[in-house]
Amino acid sequence: QDRLENKTPLINENLKKCLSTKDGRLVASLILDFLQVFSLDFSLAVFQPEINSLNGLDGRDLVCRELGLSESELNRNSPVLLELVRRSRQKDEPSVIN
Amino acid sequence: QDRLENKTPLINENLKKCLSTKDGRLVASLILDFLQVFSLDFSLAVFQPEINSLNGLDGRDLVCRELGLSESELNRNSPVLLELVRRSRQKDEPSVIN
Repeated sequence: QDRLENKTPLINENLKKCLSTKDGRLVASLILDFLQVFSLDFSLAVFQPEINSLNGLDGRDLVCRELGLSESELNRNSPVLLELVRRSRQKDEPSVIN
Repeated sequence: QDRLENKTPLINENLKKCLSTKDGRLVASLILDFLQVFSLDFSLAVFQPEINSLNGLDGRDLVCRELGLSESELNRNSPVLLELVRRSRQKDEPSVIN
C-alpha cells in the first residue's frame, strides 16, 4: 500500500513532464488526430479532460509540419500517426519481419 | 442531412479497415501503450471498447520489436510513441523548425 501511495503522484508528474515538452505535446496531438479522424467521440470526450491539456495540443496541420510530412500527401480519412508508423517501418526494416 | 447519413457508416468502415492492417493495429497499440504508461484509466476504459479491438492489439514488447526499437533502451515510464516521434524528428529535420 505504501508503494501505491508513492506511485500515483509520480505518474501524474510523468504525464505533466511529458506534455511540457514539444515532443510530448506532439505525441498527444497525434493521438487526438487519430481519435478525430475516426470520430471516436467517446474517447475524445474522456481523453482531452484526462490529460488536461486543452491548451497545448497542436492541430493536424502543425503536427504534419513538425514531422516533415506534407499534409497534401495525407488522406483526410487517415490519421497522421499511421503515416508516421509507415515511414518508420520503411526506414528501419527492409521487410525483415513478416 | 443526406451527407451525414452517408458519413457515419463510412467512418466506422475506415476504422475497421485501418485496424485490419498491421500498421493500423500498431498505431492503436501505440496509443494503448501511451494510455497505460500514464495510467489514463478513464481513457483506457473508453478507448478499448470504442475501437472494439481487444483481440488484435499488440503488447509493448511486440510494438518495440516491430518498430525496431530496443525495449531496453526505453524508459518504462515513457511511451513508445514518444521515442518514435523523437527518432522521426531527428531523421527528418536537422533542427530546421524552431
